[in-house]
Amino acid sequence: MAIEIEQPSVGLSRVAVSETHGEESPYFAGWKAYDEDPYHETTNPTGVIQMGLAENQVSFDILEEYLEQHSEAASWGTTKSAGFRDNALFQDYHGLASFRKAMASFMEQIRGGKAKFDYNRIVLTAGATAANELLTFIIADPGDALLVPTPYYPGFDRDLRWRTGVNIVPIHCDSSNNFQVTPEALEDAYHRAEKMKRRVRGVLITNPSNPLGAAIDRKVLEEIMDFVSLKNIHLVSDEIYSGSVFSPQDFTSIAEVVEARNFKDAERVHIVYSLSKDLGLPGFRVGTIYSYNDKVVTTARRMSSFTLVSSQTQHLLAAMLSDQKFTANYIKTNRERLTRRYDLIINGLRKARIECLKGNAGLFCWMNLSPFLQSQTTESELALWTLIVHEVKLNVSPGSSCHCSEPGWFRVCFANMSQQTLQIALNRLYDFMELKNFKPLT
Amino acid sequence: MAIEIEQPSVGLSRVAVSETHGEESPYFAGWKAYDEDPYHETTNPTGVIQMGLAENQVSFDILEEYLEQHSEAASWGTTKSAGFRDNALFQDYHGLASFRKAMASFMEQIRGGKAKFDYNRIVLTAGATAANELLTFIIADPGDALLVPTPYYPGFDRDLRWRTGVNIVPIHCDSSNNFQVTPEALEDAYHRAEKMKRRVRGVLITNPSNPLGAAIDRKVLEEIMDFVSLKNIHLVSDEIYSGSVFSPQDFTSIAEVVEARNFKDAERVHIVYSLSKDLGLPGFRVGTIYSYNDKVVTTARRMSSFTLVSSQTQHLLAAMLSDQKFTANYIKTNRERLTRRYDLIINGLRKARIECLKGNAGLFCWMNLSPFLQSQTTESELALWTLIVHEVKLNVSPGSSCHCSEPGWFRVCFANMSQQTLQIALNRLYDFMELKNFKPLT
Repeated sequence: MAIEIEQPSVGLSRVAVSETHGEESPYFAGWKAYDEDPYHETTNPTGVIQMGLAENQVSFDILEEYLEQHSEAASWGTTKSAGFRDNALFQDYHGLASFRKAMASFMEQIRGGKAKFDYNRIVLTAGATAANELLTFIIADPGDALLVPTPYYPGFDRDLRWRTGVNIVPIHCDSSNNFQVTPEALEDAYHRAEKMKRRVRGVLITNPSNPLGAAIDRKVLEEIMDFVSLKNIHLVSDEIYSGSVFSPQDFTSIAEVVEARNFKDAERVHIVYSLSKDLGLPGFRVGTIYSYNDKVVTTARRMSSFTLVSSQTQHLLAAMLSDQKFTANYIKTNRERLTRRYDLIINGLRKARIECLKGNAGLFCWMNLSPFLQSQTTESELALWTLIVHEVKLNVSPGSSCHCSEPGWFRVCFANMSQQTLQIALNRLYDFMELKNFKPLT
Repeated sequence: MAIEIEQPSVGLSRVAVSETHGEESPYFAGWKAYDEDPYHETTNPTGVIQMGLAENQVSFDILEEYLEQHSEAASWGTTKSAGFRDNALFQDYHGLASFRKAMASFMEQIRGGKAKFDYNRIVLTAGATAANELLTFIIADPGDALLVPTPYYPGFDRDLRWRTGVNIVPIHCDSSNNFQVTPEALEDAYHRAEKMKRRVRGVLITNPSNPLGAAIDRKVLEEIMDFVSLKNIHLVSDEIYSGSVFSPQDFTSIAEVVEARNFKDAERVHIVYSLSKDLGLPGFRVGTIYSYNDKVVTTARRMSSFTLVSSQTQHLLAAMLSDQKFTANYIKTNRERLTRRYDLIINGLRKARIECLKGNAGLFCWMNLSPFLQSQTTESELALWTLIVHEVKLNVSPGSSCHCSEPGWFRVCFANMSQQTLQIALNRLYDFMELKNFKPLT
């Protein structure tokens, strides 16, 4: 830093000096490799291609077209400055009613009208990161445990644990049943937590799953609901990729399960949503908690004082998401484009003799390189990962960073780059596999 | 809520069920009285006038004028949609460099160039509420204590304590020396904390003080610096009203003290700032932490993932605050207008035979009604406060909600309304004092 200052002795908190922020994991190490040598088609064509970032850039032009046609939504115009005044002062933690209504409607639209959302139950937070942390603060005490199916988003190790002092106990899933959660795996995780004397307060699922890129079957959701009801614990369903399912019929929201049960046990269910993935607006920091529990709604709203969404941004998005013609077109076109991208990467990988878990959602696929590992160990996985990052120059995320219980799986993002760049990445992988003459272990 | 759901048994965390959110205090009760019957000059002229809200509306026209002349700052224009794309995707927790540079420069300008700020030490948070909580997470463990001079902003009881589990131990100040902090009061608070077996990790001051409406003398700042150095603890200086000092020479930032000491012991000093008060933009949720401690900067930045500022808002404000002609004019004009408002309210109160602490900053004055209390007790203060809220229909904040150690003081905000409304409020108070024929107790 420009002003250098001696840094002697004053102590910091245990939270501050802990490593739970997770930035030392390979997940972030790969990002650093990218940051130091980022690919650019003309200025750095041999650089690292970022495939570790779950960002949606495939439908940006639809947002841009909307803004060109509705510039009044993004600005206050010269004659409407009173709007600016009201807006700039608006800091009520309920959020703009117009925006919450538009969010509720957008969430219904994504689910093809198969679930209803009451805008009074929507709590706004500055991103899903904050939403997940906030719910953890509300449902669990320090030392308690949340059960999370593996593989899971590496950021959860930070988001759910760092400041809350809560533990994650993994629900181990494996490729034998396509990494689906089973009643046995739930019970097993619960008992492991009990053995560690950690009180289990809830299950947190991501549906569609990050990193699997697949929605959870309705049957599995029913079993998870039965489990949390039996154990009298919470269920957080992080559905931030719900609009990124390739075909809407392939997705069941926990909201549908709750409604089908006539809201029995609904008070333990909380849904997290965000506009970062489905709408591709991570910079705008819009997350939401939708809870069926009145006390959680009230408490989360109070707690959202620490993480409110800019009223300027609420104002813009209220206009955008209220335009149902726009949202219908966006959702449909975005699904189609993601599907095409997915087909492109799956076919490209297949040419390189690489298979992926069958996916139906998300901005990534779950690539299986286990047949090519020297041994079925995390060390081998990380050795291969190092080659991919530094030789092939693709930043993908190793399964071990997602706590996958089997070595050899990698998350590969495909929506944060142009189609040309994706093709180059696939070519690199193809050449690598040819050059190394990798043979599947039999 | 529209969808009503049975709410049986599932348990929540201790944080969730605690009352530390503070919404049951008279501070918020007064807000409810206002919300139920808000004054409006034509539609509800007998309603409650909100004087409990530290909001700056006196200089809004300058912001509006800027936006009218620079509409490109608030929107992306029709030809610049690439700007929207980059911006919407930008979620780096460093924040936009252009915005941090503009913030550093604005903070220097407010201080008349008497202190330097390195934009690499600026961490962005969604408001000062989050900044104060975040610093508390970093410098103190659950059960530890921060020393805070009384009277203090009622929100601190929530912000510093609720989720962190940290305690506030008051540094008792009183009217005998205009509520200034003394070395004895600091030592006294420290020893009380020790007796309660609470490890003291820092002192948190607001400078200028909320609710006193007065900047802290340089001599006092020096003594506080000596104290935190001696005890090897932190010093958080919340300077969110630093641009609202009526005359710049009346304000000394802790940054000046630190620089004068050649940054000795600087690593224990952290400054909180925000654009909610000085620029009147609370809805935009822009707070900052400026720390001289490298480890705190790194950790706060990582932690800011839970409370990032919308990149759309950063984009707008980067343009606005980089325009030094605009900022110079804004700062100067805003000071002049606040001074006039202050003079207006002080003179108006004096006519009603009410004195205030001599102030030189902020959006409120500290009104002394102790001569009119039936007895020198909190009960009498709250009885008088009830009359003021429900009979005079002015929502002011009782000193007890700010943990003031003397009864009879009230915080009265004067910048969140028109001059006409302020005059009506003063007339109401005058009439009330006449009608009740209050006589100072001697």
